[in-house]
Parts: sequence; C-alpha cells; structure tokens
Amino acid sequence: MKYMPRIDVKRLMNRLEELGQIGLDTDGGTSRLALSDEDKQARDLVISWMKKVSHEIRIDGIGNIIATRKGKYDLPAVMMGSHIDTVKSGGKYDGNLGVLTGIEILETLNEHNILTDRPLSVAVFTNEEGSRFAPDMMGSMVYTDQLSLDKALSTVGICGTTVKENLEKIGYNGKRKEIKNPPHSFFELHIEQGPILDREKRTIGVVEAVQGISWMEITLEGESCHAGTYPMSFRKDVSYLSSLITIFTKEITDQIGINQVATVGSKNYYPNLINVVPSKVTMTVDMRNPNELELHKAELMLQNYVKKICNEANVEFKIKKLARFLPTNFDTELVDMIEAKAENKGYSTRRLYSPAGHDAQVLANICPSAMIFIPCKDGISHNPLESVKEADIEAGSKILFDCIVESASVNRYELIESKTLSA
Amino acid sequence: MKYMPRIDVKRLMNRLEELGQIGLDTDGGTSRLALSDEDKQARDLVISWMKKVSHEIRIDGIGNIIATRKGKYDLPAVMMGSHIDTVKSGGKYDGNLGVLTGIEILETLNEHNILTDRPLSVAVFTNEEGSRFAPDMMGSMVYTDQLSLDKALSTVGICGTTVKENLEKIGYNGKRKEIKNPPHSFFELHIEQGPILDREKRTIGVVEAVQGISWMEITLEGESCHAGTYPMSFRKDVSYLSSLITIFTKEITDQIGINQVATVGSKNYYPNLINVVPSKVTMTVDMRNPNELELHKAELMLQNYVKKICNEANVEFKIKKLARFLPTNFDTELVDMIEAKAENKGYSTRRLYSPAGHDAQVLANICPSAMIFIPCKDGISHNPLESVKEADIEAGSKILFDCIVESASVNRYELIESKTLSA
Repeated sequence: MKYMPRIDVKRLMNRLEELGQIGLDTDGGTSRLALSDEDKQARDLVISWMKKVSHEIRIDGIGNIIATRKGKYDLPAVMMGSHIDTVKSGGKYDGNLGVLTGIEILETLNEHNILTDRPLSVAVFTNEEGSRFAPDMMGSMVYTDQLSLDKALSTVGICGTTVKENLEKIGYNGKRKEIKNPPHSFFELHIEQGPILDREKRTIGVVEAVQGISWMEITLEGESCHAGTYPMSFRKDVSYLSSLITIFTKEITDQIGINQVATVGSKNYYPNLINVVPSKVTMTVDMRNPNELELHKAELMLQNYVKKICNEANVEFKIKKLARFLPTNFDTELVDMIEAKAENKGYSTRRLYSPAGHDAQVLANICPSAMIFIPCKDGISHNPLESVKEADIEAGSKILFDCIVESASVNRYELIESKTLSA
Repeated sequence: MKYMPRIDVKRLMNRLEELGQIGLDTDGGTSRLALSDEDKQARDLVISWMKKVSHEIRIDGIGNIIATRKGKYDLPAVMMGSHIDTVKSGGKYDGNLGVLTGIEILETLNEHNILTDRPLSVAVFTNEEGSRFAPDMMGSMVYTDQLSLDKALSTVGICGTTVKENLEKIGYNGKRKEIKNPPHSFFELHIEQGPILDREKRTIGVVEAVQGISWMEITLEGESCHAGTYPMSFRKDVSYLSSLITIFTKEITDQIGINQVATVGSKNYYPNLINVVPSKVTMTVDMRNPNELELHKAELMLQNYVKKICNEANVEFKIKKLARFLPTNFDTELVDMIEAKAENKGYSTRRLYSPAGHDAQVLANICPSAMIFIPCKDGISHNPLESVKEADIEAGSKILFDCIVESASVNRYELIESKTLSA
C-alpha cells in the first residue's frame, strides 16, 4: 500500500458517544453488564456498523461476534478487537474503543477501495469484565479453548441465571464451535486505565506484557486483651504485626524494583474496638509483576516474613492464596512494530505493562498478540469520570491502522508457503 | 485492738455466689445493668445483709447505698465500697467483691463485739459501669459533687428512659442531698482485671494510681487507585501510612518506658477491597499512662509524627480527641500501709496502676483513697470466664481488714483536734 488513508476520527468519536448512551446511568456512567438487555442493544448497534464494512459476521457458541472483511488471499485474518460489556457504572472507552476503532479502520479501507492481502477481522468478545458472570475474559477464553464452552454456558451469574439462558434470551447463542484456524495476529487498542501515560504526557503506551497477579489473604490470631490493663510486653498484638507486614510489602517492592507493586487494600480487625487489643486481623495482599521469577520471589519473601514475625510473637497465622495468574508476554515483533510505527509518526511512547484483564492476553495463547495503550485522564477508569482526548484516540487509531496494514501484507515467500496463492 | 479476728471466707464466697445468681445469663455471665430489675433485686439482697451489721443505711439522691456502723467517736467514717451493677455478660467479682468484703468485715467485728474508734461504712455506688447510662462512675461522681445530681437524673440511657424514672421505678430514689462530711478515707478491694498479678504469681496488687487515658481517632485521606496500574511512587497509600502510625505507637511506648501503653484497636479501610489502594483509613489510638507529663508527651509525639508523615506523603489527615482523663494518684500513706500490711502477712506484692474506671479514683478527690487488687485468672474480666481463687479473696480481705482497723483508730491528739472526744 503506497499511501495510508486517514480514518474519520469524528465518526469514531460519534460512535463511541452513541454506544456510550446504551445503559447510561443518571450519574453519567454506563452500566451494560454482559448479556443484559443493554448488552443486546449495544451488540445490535455494533453489528449494524459491522454489516457495512465486512463480508461475514459470525456469532460463536459463547456469543463472541467476529466480523471479517476478505483479503486478497484466503489466509488467517489479522484480528482487532476488544469488548463492549461494561462494569456497573463504567466509562465510554474501556473495551468499546478497541472494537469501534477496528470497524473504523475497515470502513476507511472500504471508502478508499483498499484490499489488504490478508483478511481483517474485528472481534467483540463476550463478558470480558466478569462483573455479572465469573470468570472475566470468558468469551476469549472459550474462543481460545482455555475454557470449555459447556462450562461457560452453565455459569450462574449474580442474577441467579446462567450464561446459556441469557445468551438465548438476547438471541446471541451462535454455533457451538466455529473457530477453524487461529488468527494470524491480534491487536487490541485500549485505554491505559492507569496514570502513567497521562502523568508522563506520553501518547502511545507500548504494552510489553500483562502482569502476573498474586492475591493472598493473611489471617493473624493473637489474644484479645484490655488496652489499659495489659503491659505491652505481655501482648500478642496482631494490630502491630499486621502493620509490620504492610510495611514489609513496601520493602518488597523497594527490593525487587520498579516492576513490582504490592497493595494491602483490605484489613479487618476483630472485635475492632478502641480499648481492646484485637484478637484477630485479616488482611489481603495484592502483588503484581510482569516477571514471574520476581513475582514468585516476592511471594516467598512475604511468606517467610509473616512466618518469622508470627513465630517470634507466638501468634497463629494462616496464608490463603486467593488468586494467581502467570504473567503474559506479548509478541516481541509486534511490540517492536508498535513502537516503531509510533516513533515514525512522531508520537511520544512509553513501554509499560498491563495490569491484566484484557482479551489480548488470552489471544496471546493462540497467536502473536499485542496491545496499544492511550492515556486516560488521571488514570481513572471503571468510573463515570473516565475521559480520553480525541487527539489520543486519533493517534492510537493511526498506530493500530499502520500495524494492521503491515501485518496484513504478505510477501511472495509466505504465499508459496501457504499454498493458497490465488493468481 | 490487740488481736485481729478472722473473717468468714466461706460466708463471703457464698454471698458472692448468691449475688452472682441475680441476672445470670445462660452463658454463665451476669447481666445486671444499672437500675434494672436485676439491680433492684441485688440491692435488696445486699441491704438485707447490711441491716444485720450497721446502724444506719442511707440512700442518696442518685441511689447510692451507704451503710454505717457506729464507732466509739462521732468522727468521719472510714469507708469501704464499690458497685454491684455489671456490664452485659459480666462476672461475679467485679465490684461485688469490694462491697461484700466490706459487709463481711462489719459482720466479723459484730461477731467479736469489737467497736472501732471511727465509724465504718460500706458504700454501693450507682452505675459504676456506665453500660446503660453514660458516664460511668455516675454514683460516686454525684456523691463527690463532680457531677450535678440533676444532670445525672436526667441522663437518658440506651433503653430510652432516664436515670430518674428508673430510680423511681425500682424505689431507690433517696434524699436529694445527703452527704454532710467527706469520709475519713476510702478503700476499694477489687480484682485486677488485668494479667499482671496472675502471670507474676503475686497475691496483693498495691495500686499506686489510676492511669490517665487519651483516646484519639485518626482519619487519613489519600487517593483510591487500582492496585495493578498505579506505580508505587505515584500512590498516596493510607494503608501504608496507617501502618507506620501503628508501628510508631509502639515506638512511643519503647521511648517513654514501662508506664506507657498504646493500642491501635480499631481500623477501618475504605473501600476495603483487595485490588484497590484505599482512599481512606480511620484508626483509633488508646494511650494510657499514670504520669500526666508522660501521657502528654506521648500525645505530642503521635500528633507530630502523623503530621510529619502525612505532609510528606501529601495526604490529608484529621486527629479527633475522643476522650481524655487525667491520671489520679492514690494517697501515698494509704498505699504504703497496704504494702506494709501485705508484706507483714507474708503475701507477695506488686505495685501497679489501675487502668481507670473505679469509684476509688473519684473518691480520691474528697478524701485519702486507695485500692487493693487481687489476681483474676488470665486477667479476664467483663466476661463470664472471670474467675478468682478463694485464697486470694481471703488474702485481699485480710489486708483490707487490717487497713480499715488501723485507719479507724484515733490517737489522743486527733481526738482533741476534732473536739468530739466523747469521754
């Protein structure tokens, strides 16, 4: 392709706005839980836009929507996509941006009568948020065979009804199994949902990996006693010990380095009275790192520390693993490509990690995958205040467009290899 | 008095048991809230025992019961006493012990036809616990003119009714004002309600002072953010700061020394979620010290520390004083007397502080006052498991008896001074 046409950013913004009206709350947030009536309305609207720009729209057994625009050759498609379900009172850009930019790119190619070598597809994955049905990323998990369709369909949500019932109710129960070949590659444009790009005033986030996550719950059982009558040296003070552990999580991040984050987000004291040394404290520790070895080291450091101080204080402790996700690295070639395209266009870039929770990390199990982040104001997301600049959306769309077009080009050698050369 | 008769410890134990049956819960605890029907039953029973051993029983405007056994001379009486109201699900010894031992001493003197120089009296003070009507120590506060009778009578309890209504209902609304002269001195025998004597296997606690108490609530307001997307250096982490403050309260006690205790008994995180750095933490700090200068220093150290770390972290904070009581020192002559009597009888002793909340500290404002502590098992009190050894009750009673008799003796000089020599 000798020239790159420009996408119509006004049209894209208008569509983001229109989609954002479906499920709009009085507080300005959008509540469009997976497979709800609002989700159906949103799906219908997105499909109406897809129809104009694709040759085929398929719905699979878990309700994923995949629109495909043919290429010159019958090869695996370059796929873009994300999700259009939201959390309760979420924003207009989370998920929607990746889907609508994909449609916008297909529409722009249509308007300029450009046919890419490979087919292009735009995917809407079902229930990425997991707010109504657990686990999150359900649609992409089923698509990539990491979760069985039957298990997903029988999942009961917070509403008390199953995924299957709700898919049938909204008419998005497609063929049970539809994927033939994995995509050639997968790109997801998304808002950062964190503050780094906004604070550092960078336009394009080059996402290298998705952080691994470790969630632990620590329970400390000491001895309840009167705040006045018990000398300090007699106490088994779990309030003090839980504070030491909290301080130590910060030390872990200092020791392991910038990749490591740790959060004590929740603490519960029993009996939680001003004049009683608590008998029990439960606390959670959320630790994340894109490097599995480092994350594992952090877990060991924490466990050893808890064990050491509790034994010294003669206090009972329990450590329960609540969740554990391995880090996912994105395809280095695609990551380099995103960075090069952005720098070529003069955008400021920053390599960073995603804090998990994107379909791209699931797709990375079956094809080379990558993500492009753009800034959101103050890093606020999953919130009615989620806000993104039009100029950043335009920048992200351009980089996605460039990457898609390059990935969809085939050279003669590839064509011979694939044995599908059509002319 | 040349010889000291022995009290009847079996009778005392039986009476403690009988009184403990009034308001008995199914869990073995005693619930006898102030001015309840159970309190009335208990008062009636105690008065039935008082009648046999005293010449006069007076009920004052707040329902305090004061039984007096005449002495040789019409001088201010040596007073013993405590309370018979309990917390919800309390024990058999807290309060009751001080009252019933007083009656036992009068009864023993009666049986041996011994007349002390000064009159002796046994007081039951109304609503010491404050579980139903605030403040606690209400009866002794009114008795000593530290709380106006009218204010006390109009107090509305957790039941929605006033002290006055309930006093009238149970028939213990006495003369509005009855105290003429302060007692000569006041002694309160009480269980320690802490673990020191039990752990150190000492029999007699020589109470030097009642600790001062400082209650503060600290509120820290940071910034809620995502546990994965926010780099550590960007955070305003009030979970971390509240832990630093908790650790610092321990440092305060280390620096100030053994007199100082500090407890962070309560913490509340908002929103208290595993994957969200909390936006707000509220925490309480309970600090106690028998030395006012030290307690004041502890408060200043804490306030300065909170201010310093919050300013450094750019976090908003509020410090609210919830309560503040000055320490009370007991009369050094009486304290020395208790120690000498105990050592003379071969009992192991230990000087210690009371963690507030006894009528004796209120009486100390109008006459020389002191307390004798005996051990309770594991320091447990305000609990159905409250347990005291008969041998320790006997030991405490003997020391109280010795002190009462000595305090009730007058020398010739005192008699001339008082100008009330009767013969």
